[in-house]
Formats: sequence, structure tokens, C-alpha cells
Amino acid sequence: MIQCPRGTRDFLPDEMERRRFYESVLRDTARTFGFRETETPIFEEAELFILRSGPNILNELYAFRDKGDRELALRPEMTAPAVRMFVNGMSNDPKPIKIFYFGQCFRYERPQSGRYREFFQFGAEIIGSAAPETDAEVIATAAAMIKALGLKEYKLRIGHIGVLRQKLSDAKVPAERFAEVLQKLDKKLYDEARSILASVGVEDADIGSIIDITETVGGPEVLSKIEGDAGAYLKEVLDILTAMGVEGIEIDLGVVRGLDYYTGMVFEAEAPVLGAEKQICGGGSYTLSELFGGEKVFTTGFAIGFDRILLAMEREGIPFVHDGIDAYVLYVSEEARMKAFEIVGDLRSKNVSADVDIMGRKMAKALKYAASARARYAVIIGPKELEEGSVTLRNMSTGEQSLVRICDLASAIKG
Amino acid sequence: MIQCPRGTRDFLPDEMERRRFYESVLRDTARTFGFRETETPIFEEAELFILRSGPNILNELYAFRDKGDRELALRPEMTAPAVRMFVNGMSNDPKPIKIFYFGQCFRYERPQSGRYREFFQFGAEIIGSAAPETDAEVIATAAAMIKALGLKEYKLRIGHIGVLRQKLSDAKVPAERFAEVLQKLDKKLYDEARSILASVGVEDADIGSIIDITETVGGPEVLSKIEGDAGAYLKEVLDILTAMGVEGIEIDLGVVRGLDYYTGMVFEAEAPVLGAEKQICGGGSYTLSELFGGEKVFTTGFAIGFDRILLAMEREGIPFVHDGIDAYVLYVSEEARMKAFEIVGDLRSKNVSADVDIMGRKMAKALKYAASARARYAVIIGPKELEEGSVTLRNMSTGEQSLVRICDLASAIKG
Repeated sequence: MIQCPRGTRDFLPDEMERRRFYESVLRDTARTFGFRETETPIFEEAELFILRSGPNILNELYAFRDKGDRELALRPEMTAPAVRMFVNGMSNDPKPIKIFYFGQCFRYERPQSGRYREFFQFGAEIIGSAAPETDAEVIATAAAMIKALGLKEYKLRIGHIGVLRQKLSDAKVPAERFAEVLQKLDKKLYDEARSILASVGVEDADIGSIIDITETVGGPEVLSKIEGDAGAYLKEVLDILTAMGVEGIEIDLGVVRGLDYYTGMVFEAEAPVLGAEKQICGGGSYTLSELFGGEKVFTTGFAIGFDRILLAMEREGIPFVHDGIDAYVLYVSEEARMKAFEIVGDLRSKNVSADVDIMGRKMAKALKYAASARARYAVIIGPKELEEGSVTLRNMSTGEQSLVRICDLASAIKG
Repeated sequence: MIQCPRGTRDFLPDEMERRRFYESVLRDTARTFGFRETETPIFEEAELFILRSGPNILNELYAFRDKGDRELALRPEMTAPAVRMFVNGMSNDPKPIKIFYFGQCFRYERPQSGRYREFFQFGAEIIGSAAPETDAEVIATAAAMIKALGLKEYKLRIGHIGVLRQKLSDAKVPAERFAEVLQKLDKKLYDEARSILASVGVEDADIGSIIDITETVGGPEVLSKIEGDAGAYLKEVLDILTAMGVEGIEIDLGVVRGLDYYTGMVFEAEAPVLGAEKQICGGGSYTLSELFGGEKVFTTGFAIGFDRILLAMEREGIPFVHDGIDAYVLYVSEEARMKAFEIVGDLRSKNVSADVDIMGRKMAKALKYAASARARYAVIIGPKELEEGSVTLRNMSTGEQSLVRICDLASAIKG
């Protein structure tokens, strides 16, 4: 029996209904915040992702060659494609450009709880403005989305990658080793970070103060401890967020984000209920467009791991109520058969969601099927009632039945 | 400059809004007809598509190997994945199962007008019922979708592949040559069909009557000309469609569909405005599940070429009105800046879609941006009005301005 490929999933109707519902919550929130949707291809030239993430990304890519012998890859993320799209087709649009997108991404790795080879991401970017306002807008959007989904427990932490970069630079760490060090710090692998720093000649005291930075965590009061402009910048971001009504955000200079291209503010959200793989959202300000052949343009963006946040909501026991159809139409005798199709056609044309017995079942079986389709009403068509232009309307949850004239049926069902 | 790969597209905000709108029209129609959405992975084992379409499909597949050395392929269509999903996870669900799905498919071919390497399909299936009612439901759904989209000119034609198959069998064409002959007839390549038939020893008279069948076209009156059970079957389908209010369907035994697995009724819709590549929808009844390791289960389904039907609507000049945000908030002095963020936060929390000036622009420029974002209103915050707890509300289409108390702002905008 052929199965779906390892690390991928089929979404059956109940699960899909839940996913589409929450997808629309994200989409509606994005629109409320003035973002507009875009879409890029499922695959790109592999080079795009290497430029963004470095050559190591190749190990995680689903790559293949097209007939023009170009190396293509299924997208492992959507930030690079979004920026490429901007460079190719939107660079003359009025700034700031606010876009969002939702779709499948692919990563060639060992599948585990909450991690799939085909996974779904939601992302948004504000392109063309570098300012605390921009960063605050992006953080406020992410916070509003998590709130709108209904997740109960989560932490949103903001940092500033400029602080660590400055410190590394002051300690004379060669620029080409930054990424490596930051990746270790991002994963809290302090011993490994220490040994890299020691190997490039950084003194113990400097190593200590570099690691101290990543442990600068707390409320707005810790901002005063931050050297340079970053503290004042983050205070401005927090003030704007407070004005917008976004509360409960933590400062955490340990938010590092592994990637080279982040330039300033970085942020993450996590759901403790997920345990080790708890990150549900990550973002920050960066420039990428110049790597893809465009001008350098400041951007702030974020991505939400859709599968993971749904898993967190499931673990929190957030209920989801499935929709059913409005009416299931069945007939009790052969003479009523064509009338059943006429009535179902009429109901649908009046925007009543309706299904009809296409297997000519007996009433008990047809009603059982109607219940499995979560029909609110069954419309039972019998020859005697038909003579009077009526049908029996059965409320599927109470079992109550009443005679309803066919011309009144749609409005009786809509309530 | 890196571009999107050949045959793929970026969808920028205006185009994407139009696509999402019509996608939701299809989705809503499917739900009104009692179908529920499902989703399968972007790639499958290549074997799945070979079993469905034969080994020639390999030339059109984007194929690659995973680390387990399995041959995978981006899906070229979604019927086989849907049936595989049914066999794997839905085979015990109450029948009939009514599902639909929408997404990207991939075909490795020369891109041309209305044909892309990454293209979008909408599809639906009724699984587990072989009856004229089932076929009528599926045709009615497809017809309702095309109508709901607003396409003005199209033709929906129904045939029955059983008639030709019977005739080929009567003429002693070897069963393994059927597919080849049917593919030629499907493409109206009569000379090529003739020579294959002649080469397997079919007599001229029989060849003539086989080709005659494909030219059996017209209204319900032609049904009487059809030999065997197929005529009576199609009449039943048409009668049910008429009861459901579906009109204007043509009988056409030249609707062949190239594929081996169709068993009975087949149908197609075409939009003449598209010229040579005019097919926008195709479907029929078939069995596939037994090829994928399941029991043999009758299914009727169809697919709509989303890109092509959108192109047809565009060529017909069907207008699409873009949505804008409700309000764009701007401030005219530094003192009013934080108030702007407070107000935009408040509007959004009341479900007013709103954006705010994050670039500190002067009023004329900010208003120009608001117009480009199609804002219905601009909310102008000045220090004098603020003292009275008011802001200026500007109607962006008329230019009219009025003072509105902040507490009344959301309801003034919602109208």
C-alpha cells in the first residue's frame, strides 16, 4: 500500500477544517494590521537559500535539477523568496511594503514530534523602513496573531543582535567567525562558544562578558544595563508597543537568531507546553535584498510555525467546534426521488449548505449518514406530504420534526 | 538578479487578492454542496503517478530521491493523491465520502500561455457510490462553481467512455491498445487513430463507426442513438441534473479523456475565449483505489484548472474590485506620535483594518501613501484636536473632513 512520503502528512476533513479556520484567523489579523498577501513558488533556485543561510543549508534541502540543468530546491523557508519577489517586482512600490504569506516549506531532516519534512509557515515582512515604529508594528502583529489564535500560555522575548555583534567586534573576534559563535550562543551551547572564542584569542574576562550579555533578561528595567544605542532603541520599541496596547513582553539579549543577516532587533515567541521544541515564532530586522541583486533595503519580518502553534493549542486543550452542513435531504419513496434533487438544488441556490441521499438508502441509514455529516436538519420527503407541497423537517440534535411548506424550507433552515 | 524559476510565478498583492477571492468562491460552493476539504503533500512517491497515468508521465514529472533513496515526485495532479489518502486513512468512513482540495501541481513542460510548470488545481471527488445520482452531483458541483465564478461563456459536455470501449471490444481491438486509441480520439487525431485500428486488423466499416461515435453530439435527443446501457444511464444523469436546475449541458461522445482508469460517464467544460487551450474542467467516474492497494471503490471526480479559468475570466473582462484598509492613521506633530499608535491599536482591536505612518512623513506624503493603500479613511491626529479628545477623519474618496471624538472613531469608520 503506497503511503504518503516520510515526514509528510495527509489532512483529513476534520483536521483540515481546524487548520483552515486558524489559517483564516492569521490571514484576517494580518489584513487588520494592513498587510497584503503574496505567494511565491514552491521551489526556487537553490542559490537563493545558500545566499540567505550559507552552504550548510544544502544538507537540509530537497534539491533537484530542471531540464535547463539549473539546481532547484523546495523552499525551506519563505523570507528569501519574499525578498527575491520584492527585488524582482515590487522595488518601486510605495514604501513601506507590508506583505504576508502562508504555505508549505520543506526540510530534509529526521522527523520528530512537531517537526515535519513538509511543514507550514505563516510569515510577514515590512520592507523599506528601518525604525523602532517598524519593529514595533511587526512585533505587535505577531503578538496579535498568537492572541487571536487563542493560545493561552506563551512568552514573547525581544533582543538586539547589535549588542552582541558590537561586543564580539570589540573583543576582536574575526568577522567571519561571528555566525559560528552566534549559532552556539543561540543554542545556549556556552562551552562550545567559549572554546571558539578562546581559540581566536579572546581573553577570559571578555568571554565572560559576552556570555553575560546573553543572560540579560527581564522587564524594561534591564534596558538601562545595555551599552550603546541598542538600549535606547529597544526602549523606543517597547514604548510604542505599550501605546498600541501590547503588554507582557520580555527583554532578553539571549535571543540571538542563528542567521548572519539580522542587523538589529530580534524576537521570539515560545509556548512552554511544547517542551524542548517550544519556539513558535521568530523574527527580526535584517537586510537581504542586496544579496539577491537589489538595493540594500531594511526589512523587519517574522515567521510563525503553523504546525507547532497548532500543536501547542491542542496540548492546551483549546476546543474546536466542527461545522456541519445545514441540511441533508432524503426521500422515502421512489416517487419522491426527483423532488429530493429539486429541493437540494433549490436550497443550495439559496446558499443553504445541503447534501442529498445519492445511494437510495432506507430512512434509518440515511439519518445515520446525516448525523455523521453533522447535518443540522434532515429534510424528509414523502409522497403524502408532497401532495400538500410540504416536507418533514427534522432537527437532528433534538429529534423534533415538523411539517414545512417547500417554499418556506430555506428560511426555516436558516432560522 | 535571481528570478523565480522558469514556468513559475510570483503573485503580488493585487493578483493574489483576486486569486484568494475566487479560491474562496470555489471553496464556499464546495461546502454548500456538502464537500469537505482535505490536503495531501506537495510530493508523493513517483510510483503513485505511474500507476495512475502510465510510465509516460515520468517525462513530465519533477522527480528526485530522498535519503532513503525513494523516488519522489512533485504532484502533477491531485486525484491519485486523494485516492491514496482515502485508501490509507478514510476507507472506513461512511460512504459516500465527498472531498475537495486546492493547491499547486507541477508539470515539467514547455511553458506557454495559460500553461505553467507550477499551476493550481481545484478538485473534488465523491468516493464510494456508483450511480447516476453520484455523477449528477459531481457535474452539478462543477457547473455551480463555474457559474459562481462568473464566467460568462462556457460549454459543459458529457460523454460516456463505456460506449467507445464496448465498440473497440466488439471490433476485437486488443485491450492493451485501448489507451493508445482513446488518446488519439481524445485529441481528435483521427488519421492516427485510423492507422492504429487498421494495424490491429479492424475493418474499415468498424473504424468508421468507431469514429462516428466520437461525433455523436447534441441535446438529450441524441441519447436514443446510443447503443447499450450508456444511453439510458446518461438520460438518468441528465434528468437528475434538470431536477437540480442545471441547464445547458450537451451530450458529446467525443469526450474521451485520455486516461485508462475512467469507467463510465466523463465530462469536460471549456471556455471558447481561451482558443486552443480552452479546457477549464474535466472529470468522470473511475476506479483507482485497487491500484494503490485498497479495495476497488467507485469514484466520480473532477478538476478545475484554476489558472486557466482565471485567464478566461480576465479575457471576458470580468471586473474585480480590490479591497483597501479601513483607515490610515497619521500624525502631524511629534506630540501626537504616541497617540497615533494608541489609536491604531485601539481601531485594530475593534476589528477595523488600519495602518499607521511608521516613517514620520509629512501630511501630503502620508496621504499619498494612504491612497496607494486604498484606505477608505485617513485619521489625522493633531495636537490641538487631541486636547479636545478628537481627531480629523478624512474620507479618502470625497476629501471631506470632519472632527470625530476618539471614542466614536471606530464606529464612525465602520459606518
